[in-house]
Amino acid sequence: MTNNKSYGTGGIGFIDGEYMPFSELRIPVTDMGFQLADMCYDAVHVWKGRFFRLDDHLARFQTGLQKRRYDTLGYDIEAIADVCNGCVARLGAEDAFVMLIATRGTPMGANKDLRSCQNRLIAWALPLHTIVSDEEMENGCDIVIADTMRIPPEAVDPTVKNFGRMDFVGALFEAYDRKADYAVLLDAEGCVTEGRGWNIFALRQGALLSPDDGVLEGITRKTVLELSADLNVDGRLARITADELRGADEVFLTSTAGGIMPVKSIDKKIVGDGAPGPVTQRLTELYWKLHGDPELTTPVNYQLAEGQAAEA
Amino acid sequence: MTNNKSYGTGGIGFIDGEYMPFSELRIPVTDMGFQLADMCYDAVHVWKGRFFRLDDHLARFQTGLQKRRYDTLGYDIEAIADVCNGCVARLGAEDAFVMLIATRGTPMGANKDLRSCQNRLIAWALPLHTIVSDEEMENGCDIVIADTMRIPPEAVDPTVKNFGRMDFVGALFEAYDRKADYAVLLDAEGCVTEGRGWNIFALRQGALLSPDDGVLEGITRKTVLELSADLNVDGRLARITADELRGADEVFLTSTAGGIMPVKSIDKKIVGDGAPGPVTQRLTELYWKLHGDPELTTPVNYQLAEGQAAEA
Repeated sequence: MTNNKSYGTGGIGFIDGEYMPFSELRIPVTDMGFQLADMCYDAVHVWKGRFFRLDDHLARFQTGLQKRRYDTLGYDIEAIADVCNGCVARLGAEDAFVMLIATRGTPMGANKDLRSCQNRLIAWALPLHTIVSDEEMENGCDIVIADTMRIPPEAVDPTVKNFGRMDFVGALFEAYDRKADYAVLLDAEGCVTEGRGWNIFALRQGALLSPDDGVLEGITRKTVLELSADLNVDGRLARITADELRGADEVFLTSTAGGIMPVKSIDKKIVGDGAPGPVTQRLTELYWKLHGDPELTTPVNYQLAEGQAAEA
Repeated sequence: MTNNKSYGTGGIGFIDGEYMPFSELRIPVTDMGFQLADMCYDAVHVWKGRFFRLDDHLARFQTGLQKRRYDTLGYDIEAIADVCNGCVARLGAEDAFVMLIATRGTPMGANKDLRSCQNRLIAWALPLHTIVSDEEMENGCDIVIADTMRIPPEAVDPTVKNFGRMDFVGALFEAYDRKADYAVLLDAEGCVTEGRGWNIFALRQGALLSPDDGVLEGITRKTVLELSADLNVDGRLARITADELRGADEVFLTSTAGGIMPVKSIDKKIVGDGAPGPVTQRLTELYWKLHGDPELTTPVNYQLAEGQAAEA
C-alpha cells in the first residue's frame, strides 16, 4: 500500500455502463451530482485479492440509495458488486481501492425537477492508497481542531457519504495555515465529529472513544470497535469535547483508504509521547490480520475483466 | 425567455481553454470541484444582446475566488469576461444564461492536498431560461417551508455561490411530498433564509423584506432593493420568521434565471388573493425596463465567436 503520487492515473473508471481508463472518467456538468452534490458514495478496498467487508459497504451504499431516493439507478446490489469486480479485474491489482458513486443524474428541463432525473452509477478502481503519507502512517499525523463547524445533521445527513464537503475544505485551509495537513471539525455544541474521509478515536483513561453523533458510521470504525473487545479495551461511541480530545493518551483516524492512522499532534500539542501508542499499534496489527478472515472478505472475481455485460 | 424543456442541449460549453457543445461538457471526477464541492460559481444573463450587471457578477465571482483561495486559476477578470462573451457569441443568442465556475482542480497525490491543485475555469451559455415554469412565472409558485435546515454560515459561507447543496435537495423532496415544487429553508433560529438558486422577499405592512443573514447576496435581490425606493416602498434586509413569511401580503423569489418570480402559496396557504400582487407586478416591470439602461448593461461582443485565443 502506498500513497499514490499521481492521483488520477493508472486506474479503471466506469460510467454509463462502460469501462475506461480512470484518467478519462468525466461526469456531465448537467448531472445534479455535480450541481447540487446530489449523490452518495461508498469506498471499499481490496487486499491480497480479497474485498474487505464488501457486504457491509454494499449494505451501507444501498441504505444511501434509499435515503436519497435513487429509484432509477437501474442496478441492484448484485449488479453493483459486479461493477466493483469489473473495475478491480480490469485494474488487475491484488490491492485496490474501489469507489462507488450514485448521482441524481441530469434533469429534463431547466427548472431541474429532481424527479425527472435518470440516476447514474459511476465507479472506479485505483491501486490501493492511503489518505496520509507513508511517513505519517509510520509516525503519525499532525491535525488541528478547526473553527469551521461540521455541517449539522439537521441540514445534511452525515451517515450518507457525500461530496458536499465545503466545511472540510474550510477546515483544511485552517490546518494548512497552522502548519498541519489534516483537520477535525466540531459540531454546534463544540463536540468532536470527523475529518475529510475519516472517523477519529481517542484513548482516555483506558476507554477507546469515537464520536457518537453527526458522523459517518464508518466500516473501519465498526471494525475497530469490534477489535477493541479482543484487546480487553472498553471501546464505545461517546460525546467527546475538544479538550478531551487534546488530553487523550492515544489518538488515531480510521478510513477505508488507510485503515488505522496514528495522530502525532493536535493543535501542535504532542499526543502521548509522540509515537503511535500501544493500543493503536496492536489494533493496527489485528486490523490487517482480519484481512485473511474468510468471513469478512470476498475474493475478487478477476474473470470479470472482459466480455461481461456491464449494463443492468 | 422560456423554460428550457431539454436541459443540456443547444448550449456552448468551455473547459480547459476550449469551447464545445454544452452536451459534451464534462468535468474530470478527480476534480475536487466534484469530490468536495470545492468550487464557486456565478451566473449572469444576457437580454437583447446585453449582459445585465456584468460588473456586479464578475466582482462577486472575484470575491468568491479570493475567499476560496483559487490562486492558480490563470484567468483574470478581463479574461473571464472574454470567456463569457466567447460563450454567448458562439451561442449566437440575443437572450442567454451564462454560468461561470471555478473549481479547485485535480490534486497531485491520493492524499489530495488542496494546495497541489491547478484551479480550473468552466463556463457555459444556454438560451435564457427561468428556474420556474412559464405558468408559474405568470400565476405564481407553490412553495413549502422545509424542515431541513439551511447549512449554517459557520459551516459553509453562503455568500460564495456553490454546489454543496444537499440541504436544498432534502428540502425539495419535502416539497415534492407536499405537492409543491419549491422549498425555502430556515436557519437554526427558525428564520427564513433562501431556496435553491433564489432569494425571497415578503411584503408586510408596506415593508418589503428579504433575509439579512445566511444567504447569497443576490444581484437580483440588490436590484429589487434599489427599485423599491423608486416605488416609495420601504425595501430592506431583515430577520423574517416562518410565521411572518406565511402572513405576508405578497411574496416573490428573485434569481438571475427568472428575475422576479411570484409565489402563489406557502404550505398550501394562499398568499394575498392568490394572484401576483401590485408591488410584485410593478417591480417586475421596472426590473425588465432596467435591461435597457446603459449604466447597468454591457453589449455582448459577438465578434468573439471565432478565432480568439481563449486560454489565459
